[in-house]
Amino acid sequence: MKPLTIIKIGGNVIDNSENLHQFLLDFTALPGDKILVHGGGKIATELGKSLGIEAKMVDGRRITDIETLRVVTMVYAGLINKNMVAQLQAKGCNAIGLSGADGNVIKARKRAVKTIDYGYVGDLDENSVNTTTLSSLLDGGLTPVLCAITHDGDTQLLNTNADTIASAVAVAMAAHYETILVYCFEKKGVLKDVDIEDSVVREIKADDFESLQAEGIVAGGMIPKLHNAFEAIKKGVSAVYIGKADELPMLGVREFGTKLLA
Amino acid sequence: MKPLTIIKIGGNVIDNSENLHQFLLDFTALPGDKILVHGGGKIATELGKSLGIEAKMVDGRRITDIETLRVVTMVYAGLINKNMVAQLQAKGCNAIGLSGADGNVIKARKRAVKTIDYGYVGDLDENSVNTTTLSSLLDGGLTPVLCAITHDGDTQLLNTNADTIASAVAVAMAAHYETILVYCFEKKGVLKDVDIEDSVVREIKADDFESLQAEGIVAGGMIPKLHNAFEAIKKGVSAVYIGKADELPMLGVREFGTKLLA
Repeated sequence: MKPLTIIKIGGNVIDNSENLHQFLLDFTALPGDKILVHGGGKIATELGKSLGIEAKMVDGRRITDIETLRVVTMVYAGLINKNMVAQLQAKGCNAIGLSGADGNVIKARKRAVKTIDYGYVGDLDENSVNTTTLSSLLDGGLTPVLCAITHDGDTQLLNTNADTIASAVAVAMAAHYETILVYCFEKKGVLKDVDIEDSVVREIKADDFESLQAEGIVAGGMIPKLHNAFEAIKKGVSAVYIGKADELPMLGVREFGTKLLA
Repeated sequence: MKPLTIIKIGGNVIDNSENLHQFLLDFTALPGDKILVHGGGKIATELGKSLGIEAKMVDGRRITDIETLRVVTMVYAGLINKNMVAQLQAKGCNAIGLSGADGNVIKARKRAVKTIDYGYVGDLDENSVNTTTLSSLLDGGLTPVLCAITHDGDTQLLNTNADTIASAVAVAMAAHYETILVYCFEKKGVLKDVDIEDSVVREIKADDFESLQAEGIVAGGMIPKLHNAFEAIKKGVSAVYIGKADELPMLGVREFGTKLLA
């Protein structure tokens, strides 16, 4: 099977134009088929504020009401996605920016109301990703750039977690490609010692996950991140990397961040 | 050659959700390959106002400064384009929303500063349209939905007239398809008597254009509109129709608006 790299970036890359420029250069240089998934960053929050839309929180969780959905649709699918695509084109990467509605590439379900009504938030499952259309775009030499907006197939756009999109795309495409999933975040990887930036654990196997939790090396927000990564691996993704965007060129020599594998 | 219909809509369809819903139903029902081009409408102006961005005019012409470009990118490529695509998907049309940067489908030049600096405005020429990528999307069963944002190939997004995009796409695609270009506007077509809505002139040949001007039947803003339409026909477009969006179903029986032909 052909290799396919799916890379997710968030605010720490998007919000800094220098970082973004360098990342997009490195992304363009990556050989082979690839897909970029991006979240939002500060711009949506700032636009919301300028428009007098208060961020709505319930029990510490952000709610996407209809006004917030308008803002994230404008910022993620419009401002960020199109500027990123224009930059990639200038760097020689034939990017095509997509929401989940475009070509019906990602169809989500509006999150069901249980104790909290999250509003216009989309949840994904195994069948949410349209691998036929994504594969055909890749075969046409295009590089999909997915923003964190999906749709429900019934006219409704939905705000959707970019990590979840990246993972769902990697799992679904694993039926047709040897997929590698790369999460860029603010650290160089899983650190042996949280105070030493270079103490990156180079490799974690699924079997080591529990002992690393027991030792406290994997703790806090890293637990669900790694849990989700190992789930993706169970479902067919060849490897998941977690590291810092500015080290992306090291991915080619497999020295990028922490590699998670079966 | 296969037929291809390119339809342009503007504010009078976009700004009214009932009109838009009906138009998108009719558009979906149109047989064969098709491309939708949309302008902006009131939403961008309203968002600009909410953000305290004044519409800048010089000699009665609107200027796209960097703040205005941000707003139109958010509204045209984000809010309007993605909602339209989600609605088309729900109606059974496999739409894919694109700016000119996506897949490099339309590369424009920033308008040169002569007496007026229009700011971030794109001008098109014969070679601006990437017919290879558009054809390959159409062959893949996708329906491109183009917003009025293009790029210059060197990272810069550009605000671009939607009529001009529709005409450039129709002319460029005429090398590969039998293209029909449809402009939806607020009237049923060119009217014999401007006060009688049903006095539509069904057909105008290029040779009749001058005499219709002399008679005063074609006057004012219709003159440049028709001039551009006949230019497109000269360059290979099979026919141009000008009419009202709600009569689109009549296009199939060639009873839609005014037909312009060689």
